[in-house]
Amino acid sequence: MKADEYPDLKKAAELLDGQIHRSPILRSQTIDKALGCEVHFKSEHLQKTGSFKVRGACYTLRSMLAEERSKGVITHSSGNHGQALAWAGKALDTKVHVVVPEDAPKVKVEAMHAYGAQLHFCAPGQAAREQLCSELMDAHGFSFVPPYDDPRIITGQSTMMQECIEDISGLDAAFVPVGGGGLLAGALLAARQFQPDLKVFGAEPRNADDAFRSLESGVRQEQPAPDTMADGLRTALGVHNFAIIQQEAEGIVTVTEEEILEAMKWIYRYLKQAVEPSAAVSLASIIKEKDRWKGRKLLSVLCGGNSDLSALPF
Amino acid sequence: MKADEYPDLKKAAELLDGQIHRSPILRSQTIDKALGCEVHFKSEHLQKTGSFKVRGACYTLRSMLAEERSKGVITHSSGNHGQALAWAGKALDTKVHVVVPEDAPKVKVEAMHAYGAQLHFCAPGQAAREQLCSELMDAHGFSFVPPYDDPRIITGQSTMMQECIEDISGLDAAFVPVGGGGLLAGALLAARQFQPDLKVFGAEPRNADDAFRSLESGVRQEQPAPDTMADGLRTALGVHNFAIIQQEAEGIVTVTEEEILEAMKWIYRYLKQAVEPSAAVSLASIIKEKDRWKGRKLLSVLCGGNSDLSALPF
Repeated sequence: MKADEYPDLKKAAELLDGQIHRSPILRSQTIDKALGCEVHFKSEHLQKTGSFKVRGACYTLRSMLAEERSKGVITHSSGNHGQALAWAGKALDTKVHVVVPEDAPKVKVEAMHAYGAQLHFCAPGQAAREQLCSELMDAHGFSFVPPYDDPRIITGQSTMMQECIEDISGLDAAFVPVGGGGLLAGALLAARQFQPDLKVFGAEPRNADDAFRSLESGVRQEQPAPDTMADGLRTALGVHNFAIIQQEAEGIVTVTEEEILEAMKWIYRYLKQAVEPSAAVSLASIIKEKDRWKGRKLLSVLCGGNSDLSALPF
Repeated sequence: MKADEYPDLKKAAELLDGQIHRSPILRSQTIDKALGCEVHFKSEHLQKTGSFKVRGACYTLRSMLAEERSKGVITHSSGNHGQALAWAGKALDTKVHVVVPEDAPKVKVEAMHAYGAQLHFCAPGQAAREQLCSELMDAHGFSFVPPYDDPRIITGQSTMMQECIEDISGLDAAFVPVGGGGLLAGALLAARQFQPDLKVFGAEPRNADDAFRSLESGVRQEQPAPDTMADGLRTALGVHNFAIIQQEAEGIVTVTEEEILEAMKWIYRYLKQAVEPSAAVSLASIIKEKDRWKGRKLLSVLCGGNSDLSALPF
């Protein structure tokens, strides 16, 4: 599905209105002064369930027919998408099943459980997840809600950028973390429709740079061994997502682990916000090219805040 | 000075209006659900310079005569008050000098310097600070701005609770961290004047419980060896502050280091806010007596967010 074949994004925003937070835009004078530009932080770590993932999950569930949801829905996730779907299912009285790798962070497993999801543990690795998921769907008739590589998920995530464009006039450029690519693809669709002159960049760890390499080569690349503290961005780029990113993105900025850590310190120290490492990748991308952005109005998307506190990199 | 001899608090609020932030009130459904009550978090870690201290510093400077400020002002501080005064002085074009113990946290020293203060280093300990401060005042005619034991500072800090009472209707009880006691004394004055039925408690680390012991014994007690992660609350209770606290406080709740750590985790995990350990003491006090507060509307004051990230206790 190409960018111009996507459904009415405005309707997605209407469907989510009142269901989720319109997350705030935060600022720091210290950061603006240090960079010589305006940085507006879209604070999705303050979103329901602590990440933007609830947008796609909620929209997908709500755009399903009731009978599609009646036997329950299922996904596989080690983190934020599982929490988001569990939360969205609860609001719709839909039973949510999540296939979880045994090595998933304890704090995220507890959160999925607390939101009422039924958990099914599997061996680590993508293959084991998908296989158990298929088996459970065959046996029980659950409907699958994909984590990111899906037009409905992308449409749901587009509401994040719709809000930014409404809330901040005259943005010059936006930096969106890219893992599977759902948030970035959604942001690109929204920019294209509501502010076509807005430059939208993906922000990616150098140690998990499949989106960058895919864009360079023109062919979607694998991400065999991501090795980054930004655990939310280790996922491989989705097929639908790549199609949009290839067509619409201004570029992908890649940043080192040191640059991610430094940006994370700025966010804790100056914004006083407890974000997960993935969220810092967008600010790291701005810091990296700060000379290019002097005097400009920029968006840094803080995509989530679900950190394992015992593993904070400070 | 007793509580009823204090000047017009409303005027202090007017003097600070537009100079500092009206800091936001934050909420967490997860925390409310876990405690069975409403907790409203007054977010002074998002205040200018990252703590409430800027209220007292700014009010004191602005209520001085211009000639009192003309030769510069001085204080001693290892942390938030020094930053606050440095910032407030800059806005009034007043030269700020801060006597800083050599063992003060590097990040706070850097911040004071960045706000334009001239720093004078001394040996650790209260005596050395006060002596160098006196010498510099004698030599250069600087005016002294005390960190907390002073009616003007207390009056300035009262604006925090004035905002809470205006912004949250029907509060049942408020929990305010107590170190030197300036913020608590100011909160008590504001409650007495603007919502007399509001119960205001001090929240104090058990390992620095001079306010608790002072209230119990009726005589201000020393705090010889505070041993708490809540570094902002190690200060000894001030004389003026004690007079008000003794007269007006509902009580002092003391909490262990484990209880502070647990509350801090809740604030990072559920509120996604990066606060300093002192700020968590107010929530720890609520968690400790949660059965008492079922169904009530409570205020937890997050007093500051200037943590040394490399020393976070997670």
